[in-house]
Amino acid sequence: MSARELCVVGLGLIGGSVAQAAMHAGWTVRGATASAEDTAAAAEAGVRVEPDVATALRRAAADDALVLLAVPLTAVDDVLSTVAEHAPACRLTDVVGVKEPVAAAVARRVPRVRYVGGHPMAGTTRPGFAADSAELFTGAPWVVSVDGPHRAVWTDVAGLALDCRAVVVPATAADHDAAAARISHLPHLLAAVLAAVGADGGPLALALGAGSFTDGTRVAGAPPDLVRAMCEGNRSALVDALDDALGRLGAARGALASSGTVEATVRTGYLARRAFDAARAPGDGSMQVDLESPTALERLRELGRLGARVTALHGSRAQVML
Amino acid sequence: MSARELCVVGLGLIGGSVAQAAMHAGWTVRGATASAEDTAAAAEAGVRVEPDVATALRRAAADDALVLLAVPLTAVDDVLSTVAEHAPACRLTDVVGVKEPVAAAVARRVPRVRYVGGHPMAGTTRPGFAADSAELFTGAPWVVSVDGPHRAVWTDVAGLALDCRAVVVPATAADHDAAAARISHLPHLLAAVLAAVGADGGPLALALGAGSFTDGTRVAGAPPDLVRAMCEGNRSALVDALDDALGRLGAARGALASSGTVEATVRTGYLARRAFDAARAPGDGSMQVDLESPTALERLRELGRLGARVTALHGSRAQVML
Repeated sequence: MSARELCVVGLGLIGGSVAQAAMHAGWTVRGATASAEDTAAAAEAGVRVEPDVATALRRAAADDALVLLAVPLTAVDDVLSTVAEHAPACRLTDVVGVKEPVAAAVARRVPRVRYVGGHPMAGTTRPGFAADSAELFTGAPWVVSVDGPHRAVWTDVAGLALDCRAVVVPATAADHDAAAARISHLPHLLAAVLAAVGADGGPLALALGAGSFTDGTRVAGAPPDLVRAMCEGNRSALVDALDDALGRLGAARGALASSGTVEATVRTGYLARRAFDAARAPGDGSMQVDLESPTALERLRELGRLGARVTALHGSRAQVML
Repeated sequence: MSARELCVVGLGLIGGSVAQAAMHAGWTVRGATASAEDTAAAAEAGVRVEPDVATALRRAAADDALVLLAVPLTAVDDVLSTVAEHAPACRLTDVVGVKEPVAAAVARRVPRVRYVGGHPMAGTTRPGFAADSAELFTGAPWVVSVDGPHRAVWTDVAGLALDCRAVVVPATAADHDAAAARISHLPHLLAAVLAAVGADGGPLALALGAGSFTDGTRVAGAPPDLVRAMCEGNRSALVDALDDALGRLGAARGALASSGTVEATVRTGYLARRAFDAARAPGDGSMQVDLESPTALERLRELGRLGARVTALHGSRAQVML
């Protein structure tokens, strides 16, 4: 197993939270960020902040540290150019909310890097380093890409996610992006639409907004630039998800206007939400996958499609719950 | 001011919570319900439960108690027949989530009753009496209808809502129903649609569901019968809200597919959510409305359309925050 040395590029909410969670778990963590504000806050919280990204990457290359890119999708190309210059063969992962565009950019700009994409499903509603966020990932799903071929780095990245107290969901970049369109990007657009329809009702409507409106619009308050970047970076899969939603919502409208019923919509949604609750409950199936097997990533990919999570690593064996 | 005697018909989550909150505030509370289960739980929690609804209503008529109907919309007609028989001129309010259909049923079946409709905006996700729910309404908006003409009963109902620690939002039945379609009924249908689109993504998508999906689908878990009753009871206003949502979602889909941007959708939603947050913040304007003035309900109606809340009663004066 590689030494637990981590270099975090970008110390906003996600990068800063990983840095702190990894420090708590005993990793040696260095960081760098272009933000003076995040630099000060991270240093205050005990993160060793390098003077610039290039310096941090040179040091990571020398130490064979795992490099974690925690920058918005729109900044990935720029940062990868710096990686190509200063750490062209490093172990690399990221936390960006879409995986195919990042994988394509990595292949284009840093072909020799040992890249395994990642995406912790947590937190977009506040920006910037937060000193109290080491627990941000506790229990959250953290996708670690199984596109291959870097099996040893997969184990390193999964180990980092588990040390942050997340559960690891193995998925290909394409499968991740299709799923994320449905359970992350579409929810942001529906929240935006719901907020706008509520505001269209004027001050009385906003005064009456309670639980269902509050919850349904919460992520409409997320930073617009971050929401746009993740939605627009996943255009094709998100259009499919939008078409599914438009079809279902149009059917509800049609049934209500013509027959006065929303029975099918409400029943289907109720059963789907129950399926989601069941999916989140601890599974009763458990198995192990040998990460040294040449087919380990394929096996994890199949299990991930069935909803499996990796909950622990025991040496080279991944504990999988299904 | 009338004596604080309350008769609650229906002791499910909402009726049971009002009964307990009113008891804590010093009201004399009696209740009745057709549910043997709720009868037992309410009696256990100290509510005086009459043997049947007719008995409770006769007693309420004798005591001039305020009668609160806390039954689903689908049961309103039946219960109103019993009111017409046993307490045809009582002070009457209700907690049903749509107000025009209830007002029409009251006018049709119990024309002499002194009715002022109400709707506390809280709680649909669990059914049945709950012994720990006296705080359910704390801080919640509670619409008290200003359609008139029963100004004195308006004060009684507003007093009950305030004693349950809600804030009173004055609105006509029609204004309430139009607003509720946008901020309560549409959110339930969007949650159902989102849950279904997520489940369409298979086990991997459900495994990845995190904050935005969890919040966005929460009310899809509400009892389907209650959700159907409130949505279908507000058909016309809800079709309008659905058309607004379909138009906005279709525009997002079009812009994303053609130009690759969701800028307008995300920005509009962000500003709307900020407006909602601002609307929930304590207002800095404060005034008083004299409830003994013949134009008090008209004045409250105008203020309600501007987003005003009644936060206290001082004798015959309503404290209004805007």
